[in-house]
This record gives sequence, structure tokens and C-alpha cells, in this order.
Amino acid sequence: NDPVSLENFKFLQDVDFMRSMFGEIRTKVFDAILSKMPKGDAGNSVVLMAGGTTKDFEYYDSDTEKCVFRQEAFFRYLFGVNEPDLLGLLDMARRRVILVVPPQPAGLEKWIGEQHDAAWYEKRFGLDSVVFSNDINSVLQDMKIQNIYTLFGTNSDSRNETRTIPKFPEMDKYTVNNAFLYPILTECRTFKTPKEIEYLRIATLVSSQAHVYVMRHAKEGLSERQLEAMYFGFCEYFGGARHVAYTCICASGPHASILHYGHAGRPNDRFIVDGDLMLLDMGGEYNGYATDITCSFPVNGTFTDDQKIVYNAVRAAQENVNKAMKPGVMWPDMHRLAERTILEHLLAGGLLKGSVDDMMKVFLASTFMPHGLGHLVGLNVHDVGGFTEQYPRLTEEGVKYLRTSRELRAGMFLTVEPGCYFIDSLLDAALADPTLNCFINADVLKRFRGAGGVRLEDDVMVTENGIENFTKVPRTAEDVEAVMAVKALSAAA
Amino acid sequence: NDPVSLENFKFLQDVDFMRSMFGEIRTKVFDAILSKMPKGDAGNSVVLMAGGTTKDFEYYDSDTEKCVFRQEAFFRYLFGVNEPDLLGLLDMARRRVILVVPPQPAGLEKWIGEQHDAAWYEKRFGLDSVVFSNDINSVLQDMKIQNIYTLFGTNSDSRNETRTIPKFPEMDKYTVNNAFLYPILTECRTFKTPKEIEYLRIATLVSSQAHVYVMRHAKEGLSERQLEAMYFGFCEYFGGARHVAYTCICASGPHASILHYGHAGRPNDRFIVDGDLMLLDMGGEYNGYATDITCSFPVNGTFTDDQKIVYNAVRAAQENVNKAMKPGVMWPDMHRLAERTILEHLLAGGLLKGSVDDMMKVFLASTFMPHGLGHLVGLNVHDVGGFTEQYPRLTEEGVKYLRTSRELRAGMFLTVEPGCYFIDSLLDAALADPTLNCFINADVLKRFRGAGGVRLEDDVMVTENGIENFTKVPRTAEDVEAVMAVKALSAAA
Ligand SMILES: [Mn+2]
Ligand SMILES: [Mn+2]
Repeated sequence: NDPVSLENFKFLQDVDFMRSMFGEIRTKVFDAILSKMPKGDAGNSVVLMAGGTTKDFEYYDSDTEKCVFRQEAFFRYLFGVNEPDLLGLLDMARRRVILVVPPQPAGLEKWIGEQHDAAWYEKRFGLDSVVFSNDINSVLQDMKIQNIYTLFGTNSDSRNETRTIPKFPEMDKYTVNNAFLYPILTECRTFKTPKEIEYLRIATLVSSQAHVYVMRHAKEGLSERQLEAMYFGFCEYFGGARHVAYTCICASGPHASILHYGHAGRPNDRFIVDGDLMLLDMGGEYNGYATDITCSFPVNGTFTDDQKIVYNAVRAAQENVNKAMKPGVMWPDMHRLAERTILEHLLAGGLLKGSVDDMMKVFLASTFMPHGLGHLVGLNVHDVGGFTEQYPRLTEEGVKYLRTSRELRAGMFLTVEPGCYFIDSLLDAALADPTLNCFINADVLKRFRGAGGVRLEDDVMVTENGIENFTKVPRTAEDVEAVMAVKALSAAA
Repeated sequence: NDPVSLENFKFLQDVDFMRSMFGEIRTKVFDAILSKMPKGDAGNSVVLMAGGTTKDFEYYDSDTEKCVFRQEAFFRYLFGVNEPDLLGLLDMARRRVILVVPPQPAGLEKWIGEQHDAAWYEKRFGLDSVVFSNDINSVLQDMKIQNIYTLFGTNSDSRNETRTIPKFPEMDKYTVNNAFLYPILTECRTFKTPKEIEYLRIATLVSSQAHVYVMRHAKEGLSERQLEAMYFGFCEYFGGARHVAYTCICASGPHASILHYGHAGRPNDRFIVDGDLMLLDMGGEYNGYATDITCSFPVNGTFTDDQKIVYNAVRAAQENVNKAMKPGVMWPDMHRLAERTILEHLLAGGLLKGSVDDMMKVFLASTFMPHGLGHLVGLNVHDVGGFTEQYPRLTEEGVKYLRTSRELRAGMFLTVEPGCYFIDSLLDAALADPTLNCFINADVLKRFRGAGGVRLEDDVMVTENGIENFTKVPRTAEDVEAVMAVKALSAAA
């Protein structure tokens, strides 16, 4: 009911819309910073941020790049420009957004074009001013700036520190505060603005339609790599994505039990055979905004009974979570709800025996779903804001895999991605553990060894009353089979 | 006459073929090193090389990567493995190729899969042995190694230094020579082996077919970005390319006069209009091997008379060069031949006046073709080996843009990419220069302002008698129009 359309491309690449979105974001960020900034500081303070660099994208010693430049997420959030070697300033007193560009060396224009002038940047990105990097000190002096707030912190998801460090020669003449900003900007990014929500809705729609396209064109004899090709081609053609948000996971058959399959060492290179259950975890990136969707389906278009047991277990978990989500709900409770649902289905399917309550007590679910239920998504696919002082990383089995432990609130954009896998190392460990193996029908489980697994991943926006599911892919087993029966997609490129 | 076929995908992803190709390369490299190594060193020396690292591909502070890992070219050439954080050894006495892998930390197997065992690597890449990185010192001790030859040098094309530096804790106990290896390996890479030639032939065929596909599907109203999407999708679907060899240049209309259009700051984002002349410079990368092809065509399928003047000038230059190329020919002479041909056509077309000999003396051609005629291609798109002590970078106008000044020899793989552009800054400079403007019919030239330009880029292999042109795209203006008249491509995905 959502037609494949180049209108989505136009929306996602619409510079007027983007500019209005940046305006909304900046208003929110200025408000947030000013509400926490020490009284008296606003008049003589700027925020100074650095974007990514050319150097970081250089492809070894060659003159080419690893891939086309991707801006650092915080910088893109505030300044919008996807070019390397930039700085950005927020003038707190006057609420002005200033881009700082390096002057383009003479003679480069025939290679890369004339440098855009200030008016071009200002209009396109809704900036108040553009200055050259060699003028930054005099600009700050003119503004009587004494304090520079920089962005520095530890990403609570990856545990990596900020790598974009702003510098200019006279910087040590200023009082620099590198601790204040990070939690504030992180909290801003955690909750999407109305226009970000509008943007993510269409971004997720295109990424969904790409999944449907691949689903309909997958067949035995193809390489997993060819599904990646179709996916990325679709996301770029219909949405303008120059990157996928993360390396495509195109797992067929047994490979679906490798949760992050598809990396360079497992490069989606198996040839698909009849009977394979596919697990495709792929999402396009549109102007920096990530999507993250997983579909599982039988490559020949028809689930076996055993495949359906696993599929329906995961689908029920996803449905239960989607129905239960709303502001005030604790995310770890959703993880437990998914685990419980999956165990109930595996019990009904004959793989398990005994009481689900007892299984939950010994964390049996982690044998089958050894990852978190979902995570925040935004300008990073595993977005910032997942953990705070109030909501730390958890340690209990199962929920320790979560990338956020927060209470849901409107404007959070999360994945809901329950899964059920048959991972030899985990099954062997469970079968050797008397606290776990008492629940397992080992003979039945044997039938599922090597079958891979199922993951179903939706991207959903928390609203005032529940969620809006932005992911538009067939989800019931019946719908998957029905969609796959339609092999031709009329509007495809 | 070369049908679009998944057989090419199978060939390009054929691990048996790749292994045999690596065998051929290693024999040649061992021979080359041993022929130059000081007598007596072979018995107690290894070559130690480092591949690219995970860290270099990290996407800022997130837990994802900028793009899927791409191995460093020298490392891939010798060891074949496209995974990060590896070392490689050549045991010179026994002519053995040894891969050094870091042990995979426990617990990662559910995320990325079990670590491949030694036998898997050995078989797949034709390696003699695989050892863990923490054993490297004892392995060298057992082999009674005293000398370590590492790869370090300056890339003569980019002028950047080697960035993959091998290290292990006990390395300072050995005598390290970091100067010997670079020129030898560079010279090896400059000349392709028979199996590399076979591989590049098919790689270039697929990248050619992708161009034809895009040519047939380009139309007004599309974004340049959508041509990039189709190109990359095709190269991956029909060849397995996970990367393009370099950022796609999808220039429509005036943008064709920006030679390296398509970068992040000019991100292929113009909407194409009727009458545009397109310039698409795009090439897939297949298992590390680059291709580099440019096609120019009128988006509506029919050249105007003015477009044909420019197109035929460039086509004639390419044809003249392709016919003249053979071993013994000096590459700078080919650059001059292309320049002369273009000037002759611009003269006949009425843009210029006077004597072409005189124009050549004042380097008028650089106003219209301000780049080199072509460059070596291999594991880098701008490959190593272009300059040596004997064949340095040139300084004379025109040929100073060349990335190689060498004499052609069989096994060299080069681009032949003459071009003719209407670049405002260069035209303005020429019109203001009395030594140049005396040749220019300024009134006629006006008609061409803003038209962009034409580049035609073939990838050709120098053979014993001439060249084999691996690029299979329509090249005469008539053939381009005929191919574009066939809008449907039956075998397309
Ligand atoms: Mn996810
Ligand atoms: Mn080229």
C-alpha cells in the first residue's frame, strides 16, 4: 500500500526540507545548552566542534579514499554538511550557527570544482555565517569569546572516545571545557524532532521496500553477495543512499547463526541452495540517518513446518513487544517479554520441556537469543544515548546484551529485533549444563542444528500512546509467502 | 557480443582461480626478490608485511565501520586475504608464504563466526602455513631468521608513504631493512601475470557492461546519484564488487567540467535535464583489482552537432593512441599525440584557428585537456610503478599531469583517457593570454561554455605487438546512439 516511488528519493534529498529540519534541531540544542550553561557564560562562550577529516578516509598510501566521506554524527546533526575538514561554531549569546571551512588551495578548482561561497552554504544548510578557518581566532575575538565548549565523551554503546578533536593555533588562549557538552548533545539526539521523525519515516520506508525487492528476487543459485547488491542498489536508486548504515548481513542457511555475518572475513559469499532460510539484516543510510531492518524468509518461498515454529516464535515476540511498547515502559522488561514469548513457542514446538518460568530463572533464552532486543537508531545505527548515570549498562544475563536500559519516552527511535538461532557453541554449552539441559529435548533440537536462525527487526518510533512502526515489510509467515509469490516488482529499476 | 552473464560473477569470485593466480604472482615475486637480495641473506631472511587494520576502518567513535574493509594493495597482492589485522611472511630460503593471524578473542564466535583454521586459509589462498601472531618470534627463531625485510616507500603517484607498518614485540632483535623491498614489489605489480591479465579482462568486461546498462537507463529527471546506484548495483550483482574502485563521477551537463566531480562536496546530486551531455567515470573493484572506465553520451540519445565535434575530437585522440600503443612507445609521446588530435578537431570544428604545430608549442591543449592521458591500473586505480629513477615525473606543461612517463612494455595495464572540457577558469585564463588567445575563435567558443566536456576512458593491456582493449563499450558517436536506442537490457537484474 506504499508504492515504490521516486517521490521518496526527492523527499530524502530535498534540501529545503533538510534545512528546516536542521533549524528545528538547532533550536532544541540551543535551548538545551543554554538551560544548563552556567549563568554569565552564554555571553562569552561558543561551542566549537570538529567534523571528520580527509586523512581519516584516505585509502592507505594511494590518492583515493576508502569510500566516499561520511560525516561524524554529532557534526552532521548540528551543521548538516557532509564534507571533510570542517569546524563548526555555536555562538551562544546570539544563537548563531557558524560553519568554519578551510580555504580551498588554488588550482584545485578544475579537479573538485570552485569552492562554494558563504551564501551557498548558508542557504543550503540554514547557517547564519560561514568563515574561513584561518580567521577563526579573529572571529572569536570580535565576538569577545572567552570560553570554548568542545565535544568530548565516551560513546556509551561502543565505549570509544570522541575522535573529532577541534584545534586552531590560538586555542590555548581560551578557557576550554570539554566535559559539559557531551551529555547534553547526546540527550538531544536521543529524542527525535517532528521533522526528524518525518524524515526517518520515509527513510525506513525505502529501506523496507528494498527488503521486499530483495525478498522477491532471492533464489537458489545466487550468491549472498548478489542480495547485498540488490539491496544497496535499491536504497541508492530510490532513496539516494550513498552508504548502507552498516555492513549488509546476507546470511543463507547455517550462516544465519553468525549474528554479525557479512564482515570482510565472512563476506556474504555463499551460494544459496534450495531450502535455505535467509536472514537479511540491512539498512540504508540517507543523509546520515541510519535504518536497520532484518527480514527472514525461506528462499524457495515456502516455510517448512520446522522453519515456521522458529519464525512464529520470533514473530510473536516482536508482536508482543510492539504492542506493549509505550512511554513509561522499561526497555529491559521488553527484552524479557521477548525471551519469554520465544521460550513459550519453543516449548509448544517440542524443542523444550518444563516450565517457562523456570527457564527464565536460569536464563535459558540466552541460548537461543544471545543478543539484545533492540537499540536506539539515529545518525548512528547503534545510536548514542543508550546509557546514562540513571540507566547504566546492565549485568544480568540476557539484558546485559542490551544497548540501552532506559525507560521509553516519545521520540525515541528503536529497533525491535528478537531472534532465535541455533548456534553450535551455545547449544553445546547448554546441553552440557545440567541447569539448562533439563529443559531441552535434545532429539528434537537435533532437527534444527545447522538451520541458522531467524531475526525480525523493525524500526519503531515511540509516540505518546505507543509506537508507530516505520517498517513496512511482510511479517506474518503467511504474508511473507504471499509477497514472495509475486516475483516481479513493477516499479523496480 | 559479450552477453551479460552470471558466469562472469562466478569467474571473478572463483577461489580456485584466485589461488592459482596468487601462486603465479608469488613465484614471480620470489624470483624478483632473490635475484636482488645480497648473497647469503636468503638463508636467514624473511619479508614481513602488514595488512590494513580494523582501527583504520572504524567509523569515528561508533562500533561500526566506515565501509566494509578493503585490504592494502601490496598485502593483497601477495597474501590474498581481505581481512584486517594480519601480517604476512615470505620465507626466502624455502620460498614459503606464511600468513600471521591474531588469535580471535573468546566469545566472539557467535558474533563473527568461528575463526577459520589454518587449513582453511592455506587451501583458499594457496598459503604454505598459517601461524598466530603471538608465535611470530618463535617461528622466526625456529627458522634461524636474522634479517627482516619490510615494505616501506613513497607511492610515486600520491607521494604518500607506506602506512601499513609491521610490528611485533621482539622485532628490535632482528636486523630490519625497510628500503630494499619497495622498488622490487612495485616493479612486480607494474607488469601483470597471465592470470592477472585473464582476471582483469573479465573484471573490465563487467565494469563495461555496467556502463552500457547505465547508458540505457539514464534519462532526464533522474538524479546523477541514481546513475551511481545503477552502476554499483550492476558491478556487485554481476561481478561481486563490494566496492567501486574510486568514487563514481556521474557528471551531467556543466558538471562534466569538474574532473573529479562526485566527491562528498559535489555528491552527484544534480537532476539531469534534456540536452545534457553526460560524463560517467566509474569502475568496479573485484577482489581488490580496480577498473577505471569513462563514457560520455547525450542523455536524450542523440548528439547535437556541437556535442559531436567535441566527442569526435576525443574519440579520435583515443583511437589514435590505442593504435599507436605497443612496447617501446614512450607514454608522454602518446599524451602529445592525443593533444594534437584534439586540437586538430577543434580547429576543424571552428573553435580554433591557426597552426596546430604552433598551438602545441604554447601548450594550448592544456586549456582543454588539463590532465594526463592515462595511468597504470591494478590493485590501486592509480597504480604504483608510474615513476622510477629512470622515468621521473615530468615538468613540462601537459605531460606534467601524467602519472607515468614510462616506456610501454607488455603486461602494463593502463587507462587511455583523453578528454576535452570547457572549464571556465581555464578558458578565461587562455582568453586573457595573448600567446593562447590568438588561436581561439572566442565567438565560437562561447557556444560551448557550460557544456561540460567529454572524457573517454579505456582500460587496455599492452601486449607483445600492441594492446588488447578490455573495455567493451560503444565508442563511436554512431554506436553510442545505436546502443542507447535499445532501452531494455534483457539480462539485467
Ligand atoms: Mn540492529
Ligand atoms: Mn582514470
